[in-house]
Amino acid sequence: MNFLYEGKAKRIFKTELPNEIIISFKDDATAFNGQKKDILLGKGRLNLKFTRLFFELLESKKIKTHIIEFIDDTTMRAQFVNIIPLEVVVRNYAAGSICKREGFEKGYQFSTPLCEFFYKDDSLGDPIISESEILERKMLTADELNYLRNEALKINEILATYVDTKGIILVDFKIEFGKIESGEIILADEISPDTCRFWDKNTMESLDKDVFRENKADLVSSYSKLAEVIGVEI
Amino acid sequence: MNFLYEGKAKRIFKTELPNEIIISFKDDATAFNGQKKDILLGKGRLNLKFTRLFFELLESKKIKTHIIEFIDDTTMRAQFVNIIPLEVVVRNYAAGSICKREGFEKGYQFSTPLCEFFYKDDSLGDPIISESEILERKMLTADELNYLRNEALKINEILATYVDTKGIILVDFKIEFGKIESGEIILADEISPDTCRFWDKNTMESLDKDVFRENKADLVSSYSKLAEVIGVEI
Repeated sequence: MNFLYEGKAKRIFKTELPNEIIISFKDDATAFNGQKKDILLGKGRLNLKFTRLFFELLESKKIKTHIIEFIDDTTMRAQFVNIIPLEVVVRNYAAGSICKREGFEKGYQFSTPLCEFFYKDDSLGDPIISESEILERKMLTADELNYLRNEALKINEILATYVDTKGIILVDFKIEFGKIESGEIILADEISPDTCRFWDKNTMESLDKDVFRENKADLVSSYSKLAEVIGVEI
Repeated sequence: MNFLYEGKAKRIFKTELPNEIIISFKDDATAFNGQKKDILLGKGRLNLKFTRLFFELLESKKIKTHIIEFIDDTTMRAQFVNIIPLEVVVRNYAAGSICKREGFEKGYQFSTPLCEFFYKDDSLGDPIISESEILERKMLTADELNYLRNEALKINEILATYVDTKGIILVDFKIEFGKIESGEIILADEISPDTCRFWDKNTMESLDKDVFRENKADLVSSYSKLAEVIGVEI
């Protein structure tokens, strides 16, 4: 297999088919745009399992994703997409950057889920980007942008409802979309405690990457606990 | 008269009428959220004259403003408004913060004017704010927000067309709106080279506060030159 691209948490390989790739989940943990780093044995395996659970749940609710099949503990086969250079963030409660940037208190519950877009550009530090700028940069048409926002809000509804039944609050999450050859936009990347904030409904304990960002607990222990609570077999 | 409030470039006084105020334009120049400061004799007088020209032009085109009358060289009488804590920015060309934040090249011409909102909060550094957050904070209703955006774009059209006939490019500007007692939203604050970027169409010379921000020229000379070019009597 031919190595194609290495990201912070995953490696991408070509396959014999031009429209299929292999994604390998790494044990690397990074935060603050790569400024904080560690290698945590078992993290890649856990995140693949979360991604499998959430993507299969979404597929069952008619959300189109890039998943083709899960190969082993840390690798999956996916459709090749041209990634849209946006991080689509949906927030149910305030946490992280929105508290610092806009002065919301941590834990503030939004009256309706808030959808934000960040421009994936490391050299600019992934800045927030307005919908007008997205159109100006011709990343998407207005219809595609509406589709993206609506998909993100549907995904929020599906995930939040699911984890709620397990006693977990979905605080916020980041997803990425890509275009396949036909021009269709589908959900890509991963959904895991690396890309979502999850709080235990009773204790308000973080069971996500915030434990690593804030040195609050062992990441693999927290992810394992979340896996157990929401029914991910590990 | 009773002193009510002091801003970076203006002082506000109560009058005998609860719904009227006096605004006095100061000679103080500040930039970068108050980090760079100077006192420049004649600046207040010039900015009042620009504000008069632009607000009278807008009034003649049916834009409602807070202006009641111009009293002397540096003071005007205006309607009392509850200022909406938003800086409404319209951009025709990229300059200033959007270049640094989003990586647009200075002078990039937007295919359609870009409207941005910044949350007036010095402690947060006046961050950019999304329309969803404006609604979440109940600053405005969705209808009021649409009205604001449409007024801002109309104002852009009127001002840009006017200065264009004088050989000047309106690059971008910042305006503020307020609510009067009836709940109606009107244009408030000022419109001057402190709050707009103006470039000479032939030389691309800045005739606005950028000369002060970047130490490129004497502010009062540049403002006086702009006044002469666009027909402000000084």
